[in-house]
Amino acid sequence: MTSPSAIQELVNRVRSGDPRALARAISLVENHGAHSTEVLKHLFPFSGRATLIGMTGAPGAGKSTLVDQMAREYRKQRKTIGIIAVDPTSPFSGGAILGDRIRMQAHYADPGIYIRSMATRGSLGGLASTTADVATVIDASGRDLVMIETVGVGQDEVDIVGLADVTVVVLVPGMGDDVQTIKAGIMEIADVFVINKADRDGAERVEREIRAMQSLSVRSDSWVPPIVKTVATEGSGISDVVSAIEQYREYLIEGSAGDHRRVANWRKRITEMLRDALFRRVVVDYLGDGEADRLAAEVAEHKRDPYSLVEQIVGELGKHP
Amino acid sequence: MTSPSAIQELVNRVRSGDPRALARAISLVENHGAHSTEVLKHLFPFSGRATLIGMTGAPGAGKSTLVDQMAREYRKQRKTIGIIAVDPTSPFSGGAILGDRIRMQAHYADPGIYIRSMATRGSLGGLASTTADVATVIDASGRDLVMIETVGVGQDEVDIVGLADVTVVVLVPGMGDDVQTIKAGIMEIADVFVINKADRDGAERVEREIRAMQSLSVRSDSWVPPIVKTVATEGSGISDVVSAIEQYREYLIEGSAGDHRRVANWRKRITEMLRDALFRRVVVDYLGDGEADRLAAEVAEHKRDPYSLVEQIVGELGKHP
Repeated sequence: MTSPSAIQELVNRVRSGDPRALARAISLVENHGAHSTEVLKHLFPFSGRATLIGMTGAPGAGKSTLVDQMAREYRKQRKTIGIIAVDPTSPFSGGAILGDRIRMQAHYADPGIYIRSMATRGSLGGLASTTADVATVIDASGRDLVMIETVGVGQDEVDIVGLADVTVVVLVPGMGDDVQTIKAGIMEIADVFVINKADRDGAERVEREIRAMQSLSVRSDSWVPPIVKTVATEGSGISDVVSAIEQYREYLIEGSAGDHRRVANWRKRITEMLRDALFRRVVVDYLGDGEADRLAAEVAEHKRDPYSLVEQIVGELGKHP
Repeated sequence: MTSPSAIQELVNRVRSGDPRALARAISLVENHGAHSTEVLKHLFPFSGRATLIGMTGAPGAGKSTLVDQMAREYRKQRKTIGIIAVDPTSPFSGGAILGDRIRMQAHYADPGIYIRSMATRGSLGGLASTTADVATVIDASGRDLVMIETVGVGQDEVDIVGLADVTVVVLVPGMGDDVQTIKAGIMEIADVFVINKADRDGAERVEREIRAMQSLSVRSDSWVPPIVKTVATEGSGISDVVSAIEQYREYLIEGSAGDHRRVANWRKRITEMLRDALFRRVVVDYLGDGEADRLAAEVAEHKRDPYSLVEQIVGELGKHP
């Protein structure tokens, strides 16, 4: 695919909802393939219509089951869905791919649900940035909702789900403080809390802990994140989660909080994209592999200090701005 | 501290091993404070003498206890030690600080052990990059060993422990595949495997799994990572871990593998530093806060696509290179 007309054709097919074109465009974007930027430039004007829902929580919290059940619920409302399952821990677990296959089977027959999994490995640029680009492609394909699901509770996950319009944090009773501790960081990103496996002992305690934390939390808006209890395996509480998300979305539309959030998210994304683009320009194009190796060897032998070296390279680049 | 003589004095005091100067220099570096680069430039020539040992593994594997026991063992050999406890998951757990306090108490009386904990939060630039800088400071202070301990098993941890001379991966029996799965990624970074809590059922199974994986692994050198069994809480197997690390270090010194590794690590670090420096130059200095917000708002309103915008900014910067 080298010609502008081939790119335009792919873009048109993605917009028409063709799942094979969608898969191809996503692969292109995910692998930062040739013309991925061109494809994104063409699709971007058609994005921004879908609601992006970020879902995160500790491993074992039952997020995948919850996402599945929510997808079913949305399908009852005749909404079309894209699901991006991101696994930042995959160098160790390879979990996303497995989860993808298992769930692919369940939804195989329904073209209204498109599932895609992503792993850290092989992702050039930031994982959050790539996930956002993939969400843009699915968004532009005309899906009503894009659900972004992450495995784990680290900074990567915060970055990824932070780019969504609505962030759902999934907790479960009885996982102990070591795995899931509800600290300040989680309060800042959660718009909706879900206590899954709420039929287990300790659900009330988790709720009390969230409430206690909320009284200390400093949100930039006036929203008080609701707490919804579910038993995803039995399908109970799912419609409450969907309603809570819808309420927050309405809250965003009514006030200016939604605009602020989108601008803040875009600022983060643009700066991240700039970081990557500058890096490629300087390290890949300007410096090149051979020179980078030669300089690294000099530093390793302590013939040069890396701090002065970096200042020098950046200085040279910007001499005539 | 603004004058060159004040920086020189801090550098001299760090080199003399003054723990308060060390703490101050590390804080400066960790927070990317004013003159942090100057301090690093001055300390760098005195670094490169300590052995950097990276320790990682799943949460609950008993890494902290193991690190403590290893520190005691090294102290018996009259070696001085710096320990950096890094917790990339800290927006959720805040674990590093707690661990620091607990262990600080145990070692308080021994000036031969310096302990420092780091969390993701507030760390500008990459966490791995900052950790490496902190290791450089401790190294330059004349410590024989710097142990870098991470909590968790994600990409952050791989990046952090990957910068060490020797990487130790700690596993435990019976944690199940979900938490700890021994996949290809772990094989590539481990120079020494430790099976901690080896008195538990399943230790043999973990060992068999590592051996099976090793037969499939592709290391760039000829080293076969040894597997050491420990019960850290009882202090058993600790001297075997220390010996295994020493063996690998000797292997590195004898052959060219150590040089290759240091050059590869430095190349990674330099490119990461360049990425951050370029970002600061363009987004902070050149673009500025107001302009960045204005552009983000235009993108959020879909008046502009971010992909063309980034190309344009990078293009302008490099027009006269």
